[in-house]
Amino acid sequence: MRTGCLIVISGPSGAGKGTVCSEFLRACPEVAYSISATTRAPREGERDGVNYYFLDRAAFERMIADGELLEWAEVYGNYYGTPLKKIQEKLASGTDILLEIDTQGALNVMKKFPQGIFIFILPPSLEELEKRLRGRGTDSEEVVARRMAAAAGEIAVAKEYAYTVVNDKVENAVRTISAIVTAAHARTGSNLDKIEELVKGKEA
Amino acid sequence: MRTGCLIVISGPSGAGKGTVCSEFLRACPEVAYSISATTRAPREGERDGVNYYFLDRAAFERMIADGELLEWAEVYGNYYGTPLKKIQEKLASGTDILLEIDTQGALNVMKKFPQGIFIFILPPSLEELEKRLRGRGTDSEEVVARRMAAAAGEIAVAKEYAYTVVNDKVENAVRTISAIVTAAHARTGSNLDKIEELVKGKEA
Repeated sequence: MRTGCLIVISGPSGAGKGTVCSEFLRACPEVAYSISATTRAPREGERDGVNYYFLDRAAFERMIADGELLEWAEVYGNYYGTPLKKIQEKLASGTDILLEIDTQGALNVMKKFPQGIFIFILPPSLEELEKRLRGRGTDSEEVVARRMAAAAGEIAVAKEYAYTVVNDKVENAVRTISAIVTAAHARTGSNLDKIEELVKGKEA
Repeated sequence: MRTGCLIVISGPSGAGKGTVCSEFLRACPEVAYSISATTRAPREGERDGVNYYFLDRAAFERMIADGELLEWAEVYGNYYGTPLKKIQEKLASGTDILLEIDTQGALNVMKKFPQGIFIFILPPSLEELEKRLRGRGTDSEEVVARRMAAAAGEIAVAKEYAYTVVNDKVENAVRTISAIVTAAHARTGSNLDKIEELVKGKEA
């Protein structure tokens, strides 16, 4: 059976990757979402086991110690990490899985899963990025300033990703990501069984 | 300015690559078609300068001698080749160009244009392949038998292509090819200018 694709999406805060990811999952309901674990406080409307597994630091550090995380990092004083077991199960059963993580995490996943599909979401401009951060209304002025200061460095890391998608309009970004996943399934490496079947059929 | 993508499509006779290519071009009219040169006789309905440049052997051999072909080969006693100049012009002007050639030709193009998008069209089965060859009604029994004998060897070459698309239904194959081209444009290598602009904007 064909294994699933691990789709890894990153982008600076405010690029709109959250919206793009949830719209992509709505357009492609057969794709599973990898729920990250974190020690940061839930934002309004976020639910444990849906948006994140919200853990305290002791529980998170236990997962690190037990090797239960594909990757983890400390960002802005909070832990973020990717539980490994669920991902392995989904991929083995042929299900594609979406991982929405920061650049630090993605770079670590690249080392362990080079066959993953690494996509970086770019904002159309820095002005638009700042506008979106303020418009979100969840971050203080200080946090907005800190995120903007980090943006250029994060965007430079986009060069390490196989794909970059400019999020000018959410529907365009979603269409491009769907195309990238469709293309990944058409990679010859995913179709070797079919080729073998056709070549052998001839000899039979 | 972004250069165009060279899209190279091959597949055994009868896989339906001709129909898939013409439907793809209809769906994506911004993509140009690379017209091959050949010394084989036109089939019914084929026009010079539209389907092929139909040349006599002397004219074809002059193009070989003058280095005007990206690749050429002799197949079933006829020459087939790809005029180089038009392709270079289209790609430089940012236009994607579709090249529908046999495996021998494609393998040569891979060496000169590794950045091309190489797609192999597979039939759903060998039975279906034979059915389509007969259904075409243009080939004698002897030619059908020769094409079937060649099919397994050709299909084995699919492993050299980055992508393989099973042509079960033309519209599915066209959708997959469109997705592959969309994904190719989202490759980070095609977006380095945008990344640079965003990273520099921060420092300005």
